[in-house]
Amino acid sequence: MKEQKPHIIIIGAGFGGIRAARKLSKSDVRITLIDKHNYHLFQPLLYQVSTATLSIDDIAYPVRAMIKNQKSILFRMGEVTKVDFAAKTVFIDTNELSYDYLILAPGGTTNFFGLDSIEENSFGLKTLDEAVNLRNHILHKFELASYETDPARRRALLTFIVVGGGPTGVESAGALSELIYLVMAKEYHTLNFKEVRIVLVEASDKVLAAMPEELREATIEKLIRKHIEVRLCVQVTEYDGQRLTLKGGEIIPTQTVIWAAGVKASSLAAQLSCQHDSAGRIIVNEHLQIPDYPEVFAIGDAVHFQQDARPLPMVAPVAIQQADTASKNIASLLANRELQEFTYKDVGSMATIGRNAAVVSMGKLKLDGFIAWVIWLFVHILRLVDFRNRFVVCTKWVWEYLFYERLVRLITRQ
Amino acid sequence: MKEQKPHIIIIGAGFGGIRAARKLSKSDVRITLIDKHNYHLFQPLLYQVSTATLSIDDIAYPVRAMIKNQKSILFRMGEVTKVDFAAKTVFIDTNELSYDYLILAPGGTTNFFGLDSIEENSFGLKTLDEAVNLRNHILHKFELASYETDPARRRALLTFIVVGGGPTGVESAGALSELIYLVMAKEYHTLNFKEVRIVLVEASDKVLAAMPEELREATIEKLIRKHIEVRLCVQVTEYDGQRLTLKGGEIIPTQTVIWAAGVKASSLAAQLSCQHDSAGRIIVNEHLQIPDYPEVFAIGDAVHFQQDARPLPMVAPVAIQQADTASKNIASLLANRELQEFTYKDVGSMATIGRNAAVVSMGKLKLDGFIAWVIWLFVHILRLVDFRNRFVVCTKWVWEYLFYERLVRLITRQ
Repeated sequence: MKEQKPHIIIIGAGFGGIRAARKLSKSDVRITLIDKHNYHLFQPLLYQVSTATLSIDDIAYPVRAMIKNQKSILFRMGEVTKVDFAAKTVFIDTNELSYDYLILAPGGTTNFFGLDSIEENSFGLKTLDEAVNLRNHILHKFELASYETDPARRRALLTFIVVGGGPTGVESAGALSELIYLVMAKEYHTLNFKEVRIVLVEASDKVLAAMPEELREATIEKLIRKHIEVRLCVQVTEYDGQRLTLKGGEIIPTQTVIWAAGVKASSLAAQLSCQHDSAGRIIVNEHLQIPDYPEVFAIGDAVHFQQDARPLPMVAPVAIQQADTASKNIASLLANRELQEFTYKDVGSMATIGRNAAVVSMGKLKLDGFIAWVIWLFVHILRLVDFRNRFVVCTKWVWEYLFYERLVRLITRQ
Repeated sequence: MKEQKPHIIIIGAGFGGIRAARKLSKSDVRITLIDKHNYHLFQPLLYQVSTATLSIDDIAYPVRAMIKNQKSILFRMGEVTKVDFAAKTVFIDTNELSYDYLILAPGGTTNFFGLDSIEENSFGLKTLDEAVNLRNHILHKFELASYETDPARRRALLTFIVVGGGPTGVESAGALSELIYLVMAKEYHTLNFKEVRIVLVEASDKVLAAMPEELREATIEKLIRKHIEVRLCVQVTEYDGQRLTLKGGEIIPTQTVIWAAGVKASSLAAQLSCQHDSAGRIIVNEHLQIPDYPEVFAIGDAVHFQQDARPLPMVAPVAIQQADTASKNIASLLANRELQEFTYKDVGSMATIGRNAAVVSMGKLKLDGFIAWVIWLFVHILRLVDFRNRFVVCTKWVWEYLFYERLVRLITRQ
């Protein structure tokens, strides 16, 4: 019963993969969408899971529910172990699937830059499981601290280091500060919250490097007002789970290190037989094809695409715009039309540091403070998958805003 | 800095423990509330977590958030390993705490009646982790079935056995049926849902034994209408994870057995040096004290209390009413007043089998069908901890009711 329609395999159900699947489902093709998880993850709000504001189903959405009306898309949960470009075959667990066209959208993963001790003992913030583990860990440290009588051990339990001054690091540090000082401080009556220490460590001399200078300054000021120590030009070299070593020899006793200092291409992308950059990202041509294999496209975080002499950032808008171009180009190949070149239209960037505080940079618009925060809220609510998510997330945000309460403070595994 | 106020330790932050702590916080005492989790769990809706309607924070609530306004209550997360009644000491992890009064409310746990192979391979439904594991397991079996080509293996993946015809078993089977036939059937286009089998197995000749006969009949009829095979007078003897053996020798190939066939007292209750019944429950006197230790009270699922010649059921209303009596009696001991005897006021029982379908028995009121279902909804919404929970749970129920969708279908661990 082999169908004659062209078969397109899409690897990855992130922003890019889902978008491409939906676009291509309008053509007369069969699509197999593969992901190792059964859900699409809204990564930009992952830090709100780790800091107990949102629960997993607020930011993760079943892939099958997203595509249930597109019957030409078959979903397959599984891990792709290998792709054979010459044989046009994808190896998934113990099966093989052959394709006519392939879109690689496997996404990114945390880059520890070869620092093994840090990889072993710190928390990344790229997957749902990592976020839940971090939530459990932070809450558990407070429980332990609440009856720890040794002051040095108690301080180590109450010291939280966030490494990386990009949006993920800044937003995580801000959310952690509000969790601790606005929510938990009301409940741990036996603890002295002056013993709590949150440190944001950044190797370069800037936080939010993509932002204009005035917004970077505003960000640092807001972080400091939230009792976060900002340490610029500081590199981290080792962490054994108890003591964090900085370059130069300074040692900070801490039981919690959150690593938001780098992203690289997923391991699948890095092991494909094609050209890569130093972060393992696939180098594509102007049509987003892999050179030598015109039927293979690559999009999103796993791709290195130069524009204005530098690679595009690993963010959702790039993945979505690339998905549009890649799916148009596959449709063009099917119809023997000319291919489109990809150009990224910059949509700007934004980050929130906490209640009433965000920075927004869009073209000439540069905002910080309350209005930036309201824009941040709206943009993030609107980008959630459906009305039910938006409604529940709104409810939780309003609740937190009014009552300074975070109700996902549940330790589910230890 | 030892305070002179009497110190009351309460072990367990379930319905009984929380109630007792709040009542006693009005007296001039110090209270330490201990639980191995940092949350209070609304167990009656646990099956809605395992069947992907609700997420964990809808039914679990941080204990510290519940008692933040009662500063005389100190919360301590930890596992009580031993209680020394003679020395009035509770051993928790590596610490010891001494008490003037003690309330034991450690709750219940799944009773596998010594069937080791079943304990090892089936799912209980008493803890949050169990419910999340079961959700992951059910969803994962469907993913595997969706590309399993061997029909026998596929049927085993799609066969779900619920053991136990009490409220937990009946509600779980009903919710599972709706998850499969109303939600997943729309999405797994390659599966034939006639291959799905849900079996409810009960050792006695009745489901919902506490209900009057007409409601038991109505329940069975509703279960059958939901494509659930109801097997009465059938005992289960062994399960190796692949094949379930029934007494008499029948074998059902299945990868999923949900065990809702029995509850016993928690292991802490069972190991205390006092009198127990066959389910490990503590035998108390008419004032809920442990004989010989008038300063020690026991309440809830871990207690055996005879009334009308049979032990009270292990349900929340019993625990709550016992908490009221135990805390009053401690206040009376402090004031040298006479103790109150405990009498349970029956509040009736209810169970839902799915949308528009429930049975309710309260005194002379016996209802089944839509009105019973509405009563069930109201009672459960009102019993949730606070307004935010109620609001979000309502939203999710309305969503599911209108759109036949369950959005917590997330496989988070495998």
